[in-house]
Amino acid sequence: MGLYQRCRRLRFPGLHACGLHTAAVPTPPHWLVERLGYFEELWTAQVKRLASMTQEEQRTIKISLPGGQKVDAVAWKTTPYQLAQQISSNLADTAVAAQVNGEPYDLERPLETDSDLRFLTFDSAQGKKVFWHSSTHVLGAAAEQLLGAVLCQGPSTECGFYHDFFLGKERTVKGSELPVLERFCQELTAAAQPFRRLEASRAQLRQLFKDNPFKLRLIEEKVTGPTATVYGCGMLVDLCRGPHLRHTGQIGGLKLLSVSHEDWVRLRFLCFHSSELRKGKNSSSVWKFPDAPETLQRVSGISFPTAEELRAWEEWREEAELRDHRRIGKEQELFFFHELSPGSCFFLPRGTRVYNALVAFIKAEYTRRGFSEVKTPTLFSAKLWELSGHWEHYREDMFALQPPGLDRPSSSQSDHSASPHTDTLALKPMNCPAHCLMFAHRPRSWRELPLRLADFGALHRAEASGSLGGLTRLRCFQQDDAHIFCAPDQLEAEIRGCLDFLHSVYTILGFSFHMALSTRPSGFLGEPCLWDQAEQVLQQALEEFGAPWDISPGDGAFYGPKIDVHVRDALGRPHQCGTIQLDFQLPLRFDLQYKGQLGALERPVLIHRAVLGSVERMLGVLAESCGGKWPLWLSPFQVVVIPVGTEQEEYAREAQQSLRAAGLVGDLDADSGLTLSRRIRRAQLAHYNFQFVVGQREQSKRTVNIRTRDNRRLGERDLAEAVQRLLELQDTRVPNAEEIF
Amino acid sequence: MGLYQRCRRLRFPGLHACGLHTAAVPTPPHWLVERLGYFEELWTAQVKRLASMTQEEQRTIKISLPGGQKVDAVAWKTTPYQLAQQISSNLADTAVAAQVNGEPYDLERPLETDSDLRFLTFDSAQGKKVFWHSSTHVLGAAAEQLLGAVLCQGPSTECGFYHDFFLGKERTVKGSELPVLERFCQELTAAAQPFRRLEASRAQLRQLFKDNPFKLRLIEEKVTGPTATVYGCGMLVDLCRGPHLRHTGQIGGLKLLSVSHEDWVRLRFLCFHSSELRKGKNSSSVWKFPDAPETLQRVSGISFPTAEELRAWEEWREEAELRDHRRIGKEQELFFFHELSPGSCFFLPRGTRVYNALVAFIKAEYTRRGFSEVKTPTLFSAKLWELSGHWEHYREDMFALQPPGLDRPSSSQSDHSASPHTDTLALKPMNCPAHCLMFAHRPRSWRELPLRLADFGALHRAEASGSLGGLTRLRCFQQDDAHIFCAPDQLEAEIRGCLDFLHSVYTILGFSFHMALSTRPSGFLGEPCLWDQAEQVLQQALEEFGAPWDISPGDGAFYGPKIDVHVRDALGRPHQCGTIQLDFQLPLRFDLQYKGQLGALERPVLIHRAVLGSVERMLGVLAESCGGKWPLWLSPFQVVVIPVGTEQEEYAREAQQSLRAAGLVGDLDADSGLTLSRRIRRAQLAHYNFQFVVGQREQSKRTVNIRTRDNRRLGERDLAEAVQRLLELQDTRVPNAEEIF
Repeated sequence: MGLYQRCRRLRFPGLHACGLHTAAVPTPPHWLVERLGYFEELWTAQVKRLASMTQEEQRTIKISLPGGQKVDAVAWKTTPYQLAQQISSNLADTAVAAQVNGEPYDLERPLETDSDLRFLTFDSAQGKKVFWHSSTHVLGAAAEQLLGAVLCQGPSTECGFYHDFFLGKERTVKGSELPVLERFCQELTAAAQPFRRLEASRAQLRQLFKDNPFKLRLIEEKVTGPTATVYGCGMLVDLCRGPHLRHTGQIGGLKLLSVSHEDWVRLRFLCFHSSELRKGKNSSSVWKFPDAPETLQRVSGISFPTAEELRAWEEWREEAELRDHRRIGKEQELFFFHELSPGSCFFLPRGTRVYNALVAFIKAEYTRRGFSEVKTPTLFSAKLWELSGHWEHYREDMFALQPPGLDRPSSSQSDHSASPHTDTLALKPMNCPAHCLMFAHRPRSWRELPLRLADFGALHRAEASGSLGGLTRLRCFQQDDAHIFCAPDQLEAEIRGCLDFLHSVYTILGFSFHMALSTRPSGFLGEPCLWDQAEQVLQQALEEFGAPWDISPGDGAFYGPKIDVHVRDALGRPHQCGTIQLDFQLPLRFDLQYKGQLGALERPVLIHRAVLGSVERMLGVLAESCGGKWPLWLSPFQVVVIPVGTEQEEYAREAQQSLRAAGLVGDLDADSGLTLSRRIRRAQLAHYNFQFVVGQREQSKRTVNIRTRDNRRLGERDLAEAVQRLLELQDTRVPNAEEIF
Repeated sequence: MGLYQRCRRLRFPGLHACGLHTAAVPTPPHWLVERLGYFEELWTAQVKRLASMTQEEQRTIKISLPGGQKVDAVAWKTTPYQLAQQISSNLADTAVAAQVNGEPYDLERPLETDSDLRFLTFDSAQGKKVFWHSSTHVLGAAAEQLLGAVLCQGPSTECGFYHDFFLGKERTVKGSELPVLERFCQELTAAAQPFRRLEASRAQLRQLFKDNPFKLRLIEEKVTGPTATVYGCGMLVDLCRGPHLRHTGQIGGLKLLSVSHEDWVRLRFLCFHSSELRKGKNSSSVWKFPDAPETLQRVSGISFPTAEELRAWEEWREEAELRDHRRIGKEQELFFFHELSPGSCFFLPRGTRVYNALVAFIKAEYTRRGFSEVKTPTLFSAKLWELSGHWEHYREDMFALQPPGLDRPSSSQSDHSASPHTDTLALKPMNCPAHCLMFAHRPRSWRELPLRLADFGALHRAEASGSLGGLTRLRCFQQDDAHIFCAPDQLEAEIRGCLDFLHSVYTILGFSFHMALSTRPSGFLGEPCLWDQAEQVLQQALEEFGAPWDISPGDGAFYGPKIDVHVRDALGRPHQCGTIQLDFQLPLRFDLQYKGQLGALERPVLIHRAVLGSVERMLGVLAESCGGKWPLWLSPFQVVVIPVGTEQEEYAREAQQSLRAAGLVGDLDADSGLTLSRRIRRAQLAHYNFQFVVGQREQSKRTVNIRTRDNRRLGERDLAEAVQRLLELQDTRVPNAEEIF
């Protein structure tokens, strides 16, 4: 029985079961059947070729296994899967792919030479990538067979996968169709279809994909060698580097999540040209598809090795949705967005309070750590951005403008020169060039170093409107940005100081964190020996610091190596927040100098650093991390005073005033239309850290009866003492004020 | 002897005396002599006409004098000067002009009807205006006769006068020529030339000024009646409304200060069109002078009734120059300016400290007074500015831009409509529209009012580059801006609250202040009865408040009446800082509503208010007012620790750390190259509020020996107690911490 027949047999019962009538299932398009037929032909030939290779010569190769064990294997025959079985059946079951001499590798692909072999499981990031990438093949197969889709691309993401495909100019996928598609995917996984890896020539590739213009273009643009790999899985044949799971049966749980409509030209732009564009190449080179369809369908999903894991994830997602910062922002009246300022956030009084508490925290650290806050302008001449290199590399992301009144006669005293950009201004996307001007505005001496300039200036970046979402990506934001100008021999101490700063702040915020050292990329600027030295300094500081870190070779900026910091929030989700970047280029571009101890002019090193990163984004991360139950020091709901009856309302107001006079948030719930218990419940739902209930007894003794938001009763306390204790707990930024009050 | 001869006789000795050779003095231009001849002819005719009028009929008129006395006078004959002589010879000598029925009036101009008569002296603002306006005639006369200038305009200013004139396309006045011009002016004042007022017909005016294209244009544009006044004074004949001094001899001291070059078209624009332009008329209507000279010369000066007053002013000016905030900003390293961000200030660490202290002061008041801080975006769609009316009325002063990447394909999800401004964005020049969006973003109830939203957002206004100067006028600044949304019946209490806020802040800052109530202008919008009511509320609040205030009839904004606040700094100079403005229009434009107590939707009233005004500008005013000797709470130079010898350096560092840990500015002067007394002197010159000197004794006892910046010795104090005391003095924002330590 051919694959096509097998698939059709497989499909129908499933479709019946989910209520889809046979009549509604389109016959798979003729090109799909043709392509599959040709694939089978090529596959048979490849199987024969391999068999004859191993018959001719049984070459033994050496394989190093994890743990250092070395075993013999047969070239072009032994597979990683076979070796996994030899180690343990559990490993063979849970492995999703192999890593052979550092390269990802199918478990069923015969080994070719002496190799260092590792196994990837779903637990690792690389394993997840293989798993989710394999899952998107299942989704693609379903889209092809059920909807007649022309597939475009199907990558894994940070948290799942998606597939983009074309259904014709008029047809879109509706949300209501997702369950049917999902059920079809589940049938495909239940059928445990193997992934078959085929090496095909360019001519064969062209023949296979002659009906898919996306893949044809990809073959022309991306296939550089004489052959490329194609994978077959069930009825699906796709151009793909691999590796994949052994078979779709390894996917124990799969869920489709959403459908959206994507612009093809924009997608191409993002996929193939963004890196060139960032480097300043002309965006008009974006290739236009001959018959470019306007809209692609994007279906996204997630999958796991077992159904239990999928269920656990669904529970986690429900929790995360409850914690979505946009939801919390709205419910707690922290902030809102408005179409008249897209990509910018309006912080309401409560959100501003959280924002200011975060900034005050960092400012207090600045005082302790010898950073000096400065204030620099927002709008600068394009000449500055030319000097800094932003105009060349970052212009597309900047808001530039001509000053108004060019029709106004200019004063004869003005000093406009004739250069073309002479009048152009741009909103700063970063503070560094302004800080370089500040360093350079007068001669500097070694005695002034390290000079640590901190700035909370508003930054503007022209993010595409499609990429905006809540506080995660904004067009206007502020960073806890600082630049350290230091002598080369101060670098190590400064990096240590930066790491300690990160540690202190993240500890208070309740985040664990992980660091990655990104080293010199190809095309780096500057002296290699300077890079070596700097990378060594960073590495040494990281090692001394003792927290976990990775190395990301070649991921540094062209101007210097860097340490990126990912924090994990209370739900275990990663967020890139802090950064420590060395910069050898800006001091050169701005010709920064200081008089050294021996009197000669020397060049400082520049460190860019941020701990919170974007304050707005951090506020969103924190909102989600605490699920709206803010720690006291950040809380916009610190205390609500609740009078038992109307007779206590005046005293309740006094208590509220005491709180407010101390700079604490003191609200009042004197709504006599609600019973006391209803008001207490309301305060708990609003996550007030503390409730001060005041009745006749409290009024006469000038006390308050304190409950926490978790409904612990702390009992009667003197009002003034309670306020004092709250101030202490606020000032020490404890995470659990309710427990240790 | 004709006037021309008299003038020439007068001029030569003076010129000789100041070293100018006769050969260098140009013969006065022929048109000047011609004009003077024609003026004399018209003057003789007017004298005759007046004489015959009084001969025909000696009509008696009633004049009310200051103090209520009423006297008889002869119409067309009796002059205010004669009446002043009757009152006292001192008054006659010191009066600079009269006010007849509220209108300014020459002292030598015969009275015409029953009148209420007041006298103006140099002491009043109006008197100064007359005095300085008369002085600019002297300057004009000198420019005409000495330089052959074609006069343009010569107004009085807040502090002196200037004259703009044209010298031909190539000729400019050099600074080195000012003394000669000044000496010439002094000769003219010494000659006590009378000011003679002539009423001339349009034909006569055209004949008189046929050689002055500026005046011809003025006659066409500004002279609306059948006649206009012309004044003769010495050889000068000028088109002018008056009034003037009796004669130039009343000017006892005159000094020319500076010369600059002004663009004629721009001047016309400022003089004649700015008000229309603000109202949104097309700027292309700016009239172009047929042969518009490109550059005018502007000479400015000052004058006083006596030479002593001039000398006192010169001393005061020297002091003011020492206190110039740009000078202090540079010397104390508070801030700097850079050509790459014209009109924006870079605040260095010390300036940022002052800035933040000012903002923290206002924030503390906000907490006390129930204001809620919010944060709103910087960049808004032009649609917002259309809605608010700024696009129509204020567009020329706004920085507008198109977002980048219009060549980028936009996502199909984006919601761009087809309207022309759809993509245009503009930097906010004011916060009010953003606060209106915030009020309107969800339904509001009467329970939430008054809602007081405060915002320190960066504002951008496209000030012409010629008008920029230090911190006084910037393109980018922040205000202590707040908007109060209240119910109409809350207005009075809110205005009282605003006045109290002003009073508290200015008292701490050491300013006296004066308020002016500006009432409805012609062309006001809204219901007259609403205006009446609002003006009454403001007036009543001002009266209750008890501080001095004026009324400026018709000076209100078109959207509501307002109270402008002028503070006087330590040098007695006025600065417009605070403002309280009612606005009936924005709530309409944004359709703001709240649910009233009875359930119906009602419209709130909006109050715009600021106390500091621009924080940047206030920082400049304060720098000048305190002459760089900052009060402790604002000071960027609070304490310097000075170790007596190198052995105490470590303890000195500890003391410094104690200060810094408390958030105080603690610097260290351990420069062993300088003696103790030199370092103490240096600290005094730097205006450190306190010096902590530490020797062996202090080290062993953990004390410090305290001196103030005025070199008062406060003696030995415990280090921890001293830090505590400084914190107290800082937190209470006392002006004289050094005295009451």
